[in-house]
Amino acid sequence: MLSWRLFLFLLLLPLLSLSFAEETPTSHGLPRPLIIEYTTSAKELDEEQVRLQCDSWRFTVEANNVNPWKTIPQECADYVRDYLVGRGYSFDLDKVSNEAAVYAGSVELSGDGKDVWIFDIDETLLSNLPYYAEHGYGLEVFDPVEFDKWVDKAEALGIQPSLKLYDRVLGLGFKVFLLTGRSEKQRSVTVENLINAGIQNWDKLILRASNDHGKQAVVYKSEKRDEMAREGYRILGNSGDQWSDLLGSSMSIRCFKLPNPMYYIP
Amino acid sequence: MLSWRLFLFLLLLPLLSLSFAEETPTSHGLPRPLIIEYTTSAKELDEEQVRLQCDSWRFTVEANNVNPWKTIPQECADYVRDYLVGRGYSFDLDKVSNEAAVYAGSVELSGDGKDVWIFDIDETLLSNLPYYAEHGYGLEVFDPVEFDKWVDKAEALGIQPSLKLYDRVLGLGFKVFLLTGRSEKQRSVTVENLINAGIQNWDKLILRASNDHGKQAVVYKSEKRDEMAREGYRILGNSGDQWSDLLGSSMSIRCFKLPNPMYYIP
Repeated sequence: MLSWRLFLFLLLLPLLSLSFAEETPTSHGLPRPLIIEYTTSAKELDEEQVRLQCDSWRFTVEANNVNPWKTIPQECADYVRDYLVGRGYSFDLDKVSNEAAVYAGSVELSGDGKDVWIFDIDETLLSNLPYYAEHGYGLEVFDPVEFDKWVDKAEALGIQPSLKLYDRVLGLGFKVFLLTGRSEKQRSVTVENLINAGIQNWDKLILRASNDHGKQAVVYKSEKRDEMAREGYRILGNSGDQWSDLLGSSMSIRCFKLPNPMYYIP
Repeated sequence: MLSWRLFLFLLLLPLLSLSFAEETPTSHGLPRPLIIEYTTSAKELDEEQVRLQCDSWRFTVEANNVNPWKTIPQECADYVRDYLVGRGYSFDLDKVSNEAAVYAGSVELSGDGKDVWIFDIDETLLSNLPYYAEHGYGLEVFDPVEFDKWVDKAEALGIQPSLKLYDRVLGLGFKVFLLTGRSEKQRSVTVENLINAGIQNWDKLILRASNDHGKQAVVYKSEKRDEMAREGYRILGNSGDQWSDLLGSSMSIRCFKLPNPMYYIP
């Protein structure tokens, strides 16, 4: 950024003096943009400040440092949208998927059918970006009623880097368990959506039963992993976009945190 | 970035046509920078690509997604240095410290002297940036002999946002335990350095004893936390720049991951 600004300043310096020194009709083609530029320059300084703040906010979110939050910071609305619809999000998803695939390939499996990789669903295998695009990408407080209507459409998009990892771990001989905060009532639309997105051959699809409602995600998911452990499964990998997918009891040997700057589930 | 580029393009368009259409001596004041600019523009596109890659790399590091690594990626050398010496690192340190302080203030302490906050030392309370500045900010493979010489100087700098948190948790009534990967042999220089940096009133300073050498940090630190738990301490907070400071057994209720794009300790 600095090099741009420096260059622009050096470029504009002679033009500026030109515009003031030579107020002739022929010199009038250029000065107009300069005025706009000087305004932009001050604005860009603010933008730099906001970018740094939002970079920091994103770091704290992804490293699980932030205290529970309900919406993204107002000043980071553009930042979060640009990240999600731009290339940043794709780059991050690719990177996590690749790192997970390297790890998966390095694990020696027992071959007794007890080697497990857990995937979360929303913002891990399936993307709800079309829904969040309509709701400010996290700027609006989460509305479970509206979100359930979206889920019922079964139109969430497959997250391609995750699907690549999914196929890879299946190919390596892992059993895949899907562990989601979605309700048991949404089983059929969830299955429909997964299959539409090209996801299949999972071994278990675990949704919240009626007695799981009201539990924090981190508690519910820990209990489910505890059950797996009691049944003799070895949880070798776990992919999720929330730290509540990954932390708690019976944690996987390695876990992979997908990016999600839109919302926080405790 | 895009808006800059768009603006520059719009600004340069008339200049370009001017330079080709009016090859008169008087039109020669301006075209020179355009040639420089066209080269810079292609370079900036590469820079954008590198920035995205290094942003992704940093996200994966801070979210603990990266497989063990020994040096930062070559192409991220400038990115990491700029982040550390620029404002990004400061912003992130401030943010983590502030979030931790909010949490610390929200905890109800028992008042029996068993409420503990753990701090790591290097890149958590003390900064070794002067050392890493001389070693490519993580571009060189870690050299324990050279690093120990630096440690022996006791010249590491206090990380101000962490010191603020440190004072805050002490003020709230937490006991502070310092848990470091440094060797017991470095106890006196470490104490000297801590005090020089304005850090005092810790309750325990735990360093690697001879039988801890060779242990992975995550194992050594877990064992030390297990001991604390056995002694009845409640580990309520834990601040560290490495995930190996924070994960493992007897984990703290909340942990805070400080930024560190320079090195990785398993």
